[in-house]
Amino acid sequence: MTFTQQLAAAWQKNNSLLCVGLDPDPAKFPAHLKGRDDAIFEFCKGIVDATADLACSFKPQIAYFAARRAEDQLEALIAHIHDQHPGIPVILDSKRGDIGSTAEQYAVEAFERYQADAVTVNPYMGRDSVEPYLAYPDKGVILLCRTSNPGGSDLQFLDVNGEKLYERVARLAAQDWNTTGQIGLVVGATFPTEIARVRAIVGDMPLLVPGIGAQGGDIEATVKAGKTGNATGLMINSSRAILYAGKDEGFAAAARLAAQETRDAINLYR
Amino acid sequence: MTFTQQLAAAWQKNNSLLCVGLDPDPAKFPAHLKGRDDAIFEFCKGIVDATADLACSFKPQIAYFAARRAEDQLEALIAHIHDQHPGIPVILDSKRGDIGSTAEQYAVEAFERYQADAVTVNPYMGRDSVEPYLAYPDKGVILLCRTSNPGGSDLQFLDVNGEKLYERVARLAAQDWNTTGQIGLVVGATFPTEIARVRAIVGDMPLLVPGIGAQGGDIEATVKAGKTGNATGLMINSSRAILYAGKDEGFAAAARLAAQETRDAINLYR
Repeated sequence: MTFTQQLAAAWQKNNSLLCVGLDPDPAKFPAHLKGRDDAIFEFCKGIVDATADLACSFKPQIAYFAARRAEDQLEALIAHIHDQHPGIPVILDSKRGDIGSTAEQYAVEAFERYQADAVTVNPYMGRDSVEPYLAYPDKGVILLCRTSNPGGSDLQFLDVNGEKLYERVARLAAQDWNTTGQIGLVVGATFPTEIARVRAIVGDMPLLVPGIGAQGGDIEATVKAGKTGNATGLMINSSRAILYAGKDEGFAAAARLAAQETRDAINLYR
Repeated sequence: MTFTQQLAAAWQKNNSLLCVGLDPDPAKFPAHLKGRDDAIFEFCKGIVDATADLACSFKPQIAYFAARRAEDQLEALIAHIHDQHPGIPVILDSKRGDIGSTAEQYAVEAFERYQADAVTVNPYMGRDSVEPYLAYPDKGVILLCRTSNPGGSDLQFLDVNGEKLYERVARLAAQDWNTTGQIGLVVGATFPTEIARVRAIVGDMPLLVPGIGAQGGDIEATVKAGKTGNATGLMINSSRAILYAGKDEGFAAAARLAAQETRDAINLYR
């Protein structure tokens, strides 16, 4: 099954557009996990097991693992998701972007080593920096388009012959690069007007939307701006607001509650 | 000593603008190393020890390590360079780029875990995606500007209010973001005219120039377009042409010869 098919099935099965972001910061872990060698895996496993029936995807952010020599725990976590929660796609959030020969190595990292179903990629280096990922026909490739951070405007909002750079990226992705239907885009929830502009350009392409919760994006505006005709098309990511909803041994139950509330809040506007 | 000072000292001490890129591909290793658990480290160590007095910097490309679960060998390699060849800065080529809280994690990865002296960063997400690296005052931050690959033109060569996007990146980097003198830029050797335009915008800022050798960039044009008033300012990277100059147990000696020829060819035009 391709990433796109898997995602469509998860939207339906769990009645959810919620993507649970896995950004494990040990400083914020409950006390009973601190000091354990496998704390990152155990924490994320707790979150995953508590939210798998509420999410359309999981998105581990590789930086949090790499900063702590925890690549092995990331491998174990993704294997656990595939094994215990089949059908929920895993997006490796690594925002790679490099020349073709190097991108081939990053594709091996994401798809062969980590067994991710999709990967985020930075489009600044252009088409040949994206193609090596597309060589894996079952995998998804989610390009940065309009990011949720304040500095996102520095380049992405520049005028390029009458449109903004992020609109050009959306157009390139939809009209030129997406010959195989594997591409999606990242568009931040902090800019709902721009989600609508991207949606108008890309048709039903899946959009990964970070920025609700800790970053301040508005759920109603995001859903209304980004949903497709059949009220899907979105992976609305929440990380910190779910991961750190609770502080003690009940962290997973608290995360489940936060995920359920977020999923339901999203569904209100579908 | 800061990265910039270390680089200036290495330019002078080794009379070299050559950056040796470490892109270890086990399929191309000499037969006597194949199958060894530490083949990546041993191969790179052979290259490093044979070329350290000919280079102004080493640039390991993290994708080649990550694709093969060889992060430990990358750590060992950088430690070896610092230990055996002090004064030669190490640029971790990872082209990270993410929101501030994630960029903090990537900065930990590059500067605390791997002990790199500088890191390459993708500017697409703007200023706050760069700042966490600048919080390490001794470290260098080398932003992608005009990359050497064919797709580099897809975005970087777009017109932005009368200049190209890569020129805007150079201007932002030099005039707005580089308040601490830590920033450098990546400008591909495949575009010497554009190296000259970037040099005109950024003054004496260090430029990392990939693309000679396997990618086809011209040494004479690169040096003439990019050198500063004191005939430095460049880290001209060669990876494959040096790493795979020889095929057997003499690979390190062959690499040394290739590095020496490249360094001398560069020096001809300084």
